[in-house]
Amino acid sequence: MSSRALKEHTSVALLAEGVLNGNRLMLSRAISHVENQETDASALLTALYPHAGKAHIVGVTGAPGTGKSTLVTALALSCRGAGMTVGIVAIDPTSPFTGGALLGDRVRMRALAGDTGVFVRSMATRGSLGGLSKTTGDVVTVLDAAGFDCIIVETVGVGQAEVEIASTAHTTLVVEAPGLGDEVQAIKAGILEIADILVVNKADRPGMDRTLRALEMMLDIEGNGARYVRHHGQLLRVESPAESEDEETRWKVTVMKTVATDGTGVEDLRQRIDAHRHWLRESGEMAMREQLRIANTLENIIRAELNRRIAASIPAGGLEKMVEKIRRRESDPYAAAAVLLAGV
Amino acid sequence: MSSRALKEHTSVALLAEGVLNGNRLMLSRAISHVENQETDASALLTALYPHAGKAHIVGVTGAPGTGKSTLVTALALSCRGAGMTVGIVAIDPTSPFTGGALLGDRVRMRALAGDTGVFVRSMATRGSLGGLSKTTGDVVTVLDAAGFDCIIVETVGVGQAEVEIASTAHTTLVVEAPGLGDEVQAIKAGILEIADILVVNKADRPGMDRTLRALEMMLDIEGNGARYVRHHGQLLRVESPAESEDEETRWKVTVMKTVATDGTGVEDLRQRIDAHRHWLRESGEMAMREQLRIANTLENIIRAELNRRIAASIPAGGLEKMVEKIRRRESDPYAAAAVLLAGV
Repeated sequence: MSSRALKEHTSVALLAEGVLNGNRLMLSRAISHVENQETDASALLTALYPHAGKAHIVGVTGAPGTGKSTLVTALALSCRGAGMTVGIVAIDPTSPFTGGALLGDRVRMRALAGDTGVFVRSMATRGSLGGLSKTTGDVVTVLDAAGFDCIIVETVGVGQAEVEIASTAHTTLVVEAPGLGDEVQAIKAGILEIADILVVNKADRPGMDRTLRALEMMLDIEGNGARYVRHHGQLLRVESPAESEDEETRWKVTVMKTVATDGTGVEDLRQRIDAHRHWLRESGEMAMREQLRIANTLENIIRAELNRRIAASIPAGGLEKMVEKIRRRESDPYAAAAVLLAGV
Repeated sequence: MSSRALKEHTSVALLAEGVLNGNRLMLSRAISHVENQETDASALLTALYPHAGKAHIVGVTGAPGTGKSTLVTALALSCRGAGMTVGIVAIDPTSPFTGGALLGDRVRMRALAGDTGVFVRSMATRGSLGGLSKTTGDVVTVLDAAGFDCIIVETVGVGQAEVEIASTAHTTLVVEAPGLGDEVQAIKAGILEIADILVVNKADRPGMDRTLRALEMMLDIEGNGARYVRHHGQLLRVESPAESEDEETRWKVTVMKTVATDGTGVEDLRQRIDAHRHWLRESGEMAMREQLRIANTLENIIRAELNRRIAASIPAGGLEKMVEKIRRRESDPYAAAAVLLAGV
């Protein structure tokens, strides 16, 4: 074994041991390793993987202004009160100006500081394009192996990245708030399909009843006699009572009201999450979601490796020459892709 | 040549000829071909590609509620007044309930109906996950080959998909509106880096001055003596006058005010877009953006093909077995990925 390989091996073994023994410094380093996609990151993940799989992973997403960070903090405190340890992964959009995380409201999570049963990690998206979901899943694996009972992944905004991250969660909360406007509500409908639990936070604000009604109408269109239920990861339309005979085994998406700033409704929300966790296990849905998570992870790893191989198979300057030929319309992207693929 | 290959060849040749001759029915069919990723779609694109490259491609993006559709309609009318033909690609989020496009405000574009110098195409995102940007770029190529002078791509929301689509545009407009809330503004900062021109629409609404000030502060932080300018696709911080000597060659992101509903400021906006087009050509930035667009397109085509090859290389049921082994923690995604890749 070369000294470099030995060093990496030692480093991975030490990091893995530290994570499994609950050493917070080592945990922090291990997460950085994975986040920065160091060369030995996959060896570290292979070492940790057998120890992961016990945590309940909760995704929290929704539009800006819904108070997600405050809700996550309140939820973590509630979990602590119930004797659970909590890992939090907060995904922040990166500012183009500072290169750092945008949202100062991470400071709200200070209520959790000093509690060794809580570990908070902020991750910047590092530019809008990709890389996000793969590392997020890996960071969750590290926290999972470290033994946290509940891992909360908080994402900001409503976009593709958020939906991808939700696919790494067992229970996905979509957070809404009153008074964010009609069109915003309509857009958010696009992520209703990923919600296991809908939360209307800031429930003490004006417009609450309207928001609640709108959401319940979307979930249960009584006029049509139709209802929408989650079943095996899909939103199904239940046309008539005759079709809903196995309704007992289905999860009903409900709307929960919270005021995260004073804790109103947070205990109920935690219990609803717990109910979902039990349902996932009893219905067999948990196994299905784990399969989906694993398939996603596999796909991400393979894609990254193939990208690396393609890059390696193209001679230096080869891609630039090809792009230039296409730009002069002497070739086209489809013909060029065929040439590049022939080399892989 | 087999009869099937002959049929496809004929079909592609006819479609390409129709598109190039300005036959609207054929254009519409060609776009559907590309959008549905028919087997002969890449042959069609190869046939059309040499004829594309003349249009100016304008991306319009921004948060919901900013009045993008109305602005795009007004902008298209302004282009028509200046003697240009216009193609519009409007990307709609798909409703999980109906499977169709969500936004009824496409009907606002009816002002453009009956004008043969305008072609409007709505595209649904078809679920939140992927496939979007590749087809959008291809649809733009078809419209470009069809000879439209200006192609406007309108996207809803602020997410990864939107940023990807902006990378297919020559000139990207980020639309804001007064009174959408502070946190929303902060989030939108994440897409300021893609803006060539910032537009505050609904400029007759309350809160206008505050929004304008906030945006200008972001673009030009006078207190620090720092300015932000676009240069070769990147947002650069100009620290001091000494560093800004080649400022003449840089594009200055400015804030334009519009009231799309009555046309106020739209003519100025169109002229600003035209100024950007001229700058792109004179500065050499156009060639760089075209290179980026082509590289993105290549990457998307290659990724799709590799995904197809991986799927083909895995024996039926093989992936499921592997996922199940990982789920039982008898393997891990990294080891499994190595096995799968060995077969490609």
